[in-house]
Amino acid sequence: MIVGGKHYQSIWPDPDNPEVIRIIDQNRLPFEFRIDEITTSKQAHYAIRTMKIRGAPLIGVTGAFGVYLACLEARRNKDWNKFVEDRALLIRSARPTAVNLEWAVDRIMMGIRDAKNVEESILRSRQEAIRLMEEEKDASFRIGMHGLEIIREISLRKKGHRVNILTHCNAGWLACIDYGTATAPVYLAHDQGIPVHIWVDETRPRNQGARLTAWELGQHGVPHTVVVDNAGGYLMQRGLVDLVLVGSDRTTRTGDVANKIGTYLKALAAHDNNVPFYAAVPSSSIDFGIRSGLKEIRIEERNHSEVREIEGSVDGEIKTVKILPAESPVSNYGFDITPARLVTGLITERGICAANEETIMQLFPEKKP
Amino acid sequence: MIVGGKHYQSIWPDPDNPEVIRIIDQNRLPFEFRIDEITTSKQAHYAIRTMKIRGAPLIGVTGAFGVYLACLEARRNKDWNKFVEDRALLIRSARPTAVNLEWAVDRIMMGIRDAKNVEESILRSRQEAIRLMEEEKDASFRIGMHGLEIIREISLRKKGHRVNILTHCNAGWLACIDYGTATAPVYLAHDQGIPVHIWVDETRPRNQGARLTAWELGQHGVPHTVVVDNAGGYLMQRGLVDLVLVGSDRTTRTGDVANKIGTYLKALAAHDNNVPFYAAVPSSSIDFGIRSGLKEIRIEERNHSEVREIEGSVDGEIKTVKILPAESPVSNYGFDITPARLVTGLITERGICAANEETIMQLFPEKKP
Repeated sequence: MIVGGKHYQSIWPDPDNPEVIRIIDQNRLPFEFRIDEITTSKQAHYAIRTMKIRGAPLIGVTGAFGVYLACLEARRNKDWNKFVEDRALLIRSARPTAVNLEWAVDRIMMGIRDAKNVEESILRSRQEAIRLMEEEKDASFRIGMHGLEIIREISLRKKGHRVNILTHCNAGWLACIDYGTATAPVYLAHDQGIPVHIWVDETRPRNQGARLTAWELGQHGVPHTVVVDNAGGYLMQRGLVDLVLVGSDRTTRTGDVANKIGTYLKALAAHDNNVPFYAAVPSSSIDFGIRSGLKEIRIEERNHSEVREIEGSVDGEIKTVKILPAESPVSNYGFDITPARLVTGLITERGICAANEETIMQLFPEKKP
Repeated sequence: MIVGGKHYQSIWPDPDNPEVIRIIDQNRLPFEFRIDEITTSKQAHYAIRTMKIRGAPLIGVTGAFGVYLACLEARRNKDWNKFVEDRALLIRSARPTAVNLEWAVDRIMMGIRDAKNVEESILRSRQEAIRLMEEEKDASFRIGMHGLEIIREISLRKKGHRVNILTHCNAGWLACIDYGTATAPVYLAHDQGIPVHIWVDETRPRNQGARLTAWELGQHGVPHTVVVDNAGGYLMQRGLVDLVLVGSDRTTRTGDVANKIGTYLKALAAHDNNVPFYAAVPSSSIDFGIRSGLKEIRIEERNHSEVREIEGSVDGEIKTVKILPAESPVSNYGFDITPARLVTGLITERGICAANEETIMQLFPEKKP
């Protein structure tokens, strides 16, 4: 999408130098727009581990390019095969919970498993990483096209008055390669001239809404307003929200949606106020092996410093301030479960379906038991 | 309640110097525990306006002592009557939305209206301000005693396992004189040896939960854990909350509860998970003249900097950091409405009642039309 009037992806191979991969350092946003170069597999590992890049699809693609960079480095190694394998293991370990990462690294490794020499492995790994990147963009775009119809329908019903959409966390193009998941329908609607306005939950504790979603919408020129996470219920009580659109970290085959903590509260408010609630769910994030979100999805407990401290800018410098009494204990669950009964529908790359096993299986018949 | 092992109120007349009123500077908490002295009516006005002290009951009592200080100052004025009246007007204007402030100032002014000279006005205003302070403490204590029975019952049902109570914002002793409203039952239960544990919502944007509630519970030794506002739903999904206990800024005669923004979301989650949801409501905050929270309570829109910035400590210094893209618009509603249908009960100084007009009128028969 657009940054400073120019089109960007969240990751791209440098067009002039085949040994360079470029990323946006998301840890500096929104305070500084800095493009980093990644030229070694260790740098790829580091970028994932330190969350310079984040978001399941982007983590996967970064891991894939990391294997490509390992192949390049392997030129200087007698046992190039072993070197690449070691580095693939290292990259896979950068964030243990991101399923996409293992899956993407393994896919590139499969692609080069019968390469005859290091040069062939370089060629193949690059091709395969680029293919993966394009597939992710395509999935986002398709989700966007399907979700666009929901927005278009509301816009028609409102006779062209702006459609107010609330979103939580960042399921935007920064988390993906382009378009995003929850934001994809928004960008396509905006680009087609349908008036939209986005309520952006700041999304404590890491503030991905305030820092990333607000920034990417602002850069692309999409009207939006940042609110604290407490505000969404009141906005819905006042009729100021037409649609809730969120991403998902993992969705069960029955339509329970695990997403950033706080999503469930917004789903309850949407239900209480007859506001449609949709999750944008690429099929790669549907866990077809499980049926109960509350019983079968383990919720990650994250570092307490995320609650205790907050990062911001003071006179242009990024600083961390402590915001709690030092002695007060803290708890930090990362996600919650929105039960299928509160979900109006799932927007997948194959189309929209209701949040229940029967209709999900109609879209994904190959997943029937 | 207890701070550093010693008993404190949020405001008190200095026992050694009748011309000094003491307060805790709540703007410095939890980073610094600083006791300020107020010796002039202008200082009282300033303390209210800058939110060194906040919370409806405390604002009222501070205003009352402000009039007393004006009477002291009036000794040096020929037209002492006019001086006190002017200062009373000034104090009343410190926070226009706090009904308690006007009411308390007017009450002291009524008390001195037929004072024969300035010395009599000093004596009477001091007596009346102290009486008001004691009445507020008493109301908090009574709310505590009634609410204690709810906690005791849950504790019995749980066979003495700790009772987990979630609270939002600060309806603690810092907002009142002592005990608090929502916290009063908690302190009494804790002091009686009933094991309780409090989930403290940080309460963005002003973080009164993280800064004040966590601090006062910690100082008094009450076990508690700070969570982001997004977490409460998940805690309830996991069965980790036995009771939600909040304060109220204004409650209708039908039991709709206006309270700090985000309260409604917690009430929805409590309802969805069969967790009892109580509001601690001194009758002074019941607006017997209105029936519909959503239609009749105007919700204050507050300064945008509260959302854009956050205050914390860096190496012991209090600093403000910016946490949003500079160009992103912001909205900041201060309160929301929890409809009576989601409220299990109201805890008043006269006892507990269901959140509907009939039972509220049984407790307050003098308010029948």
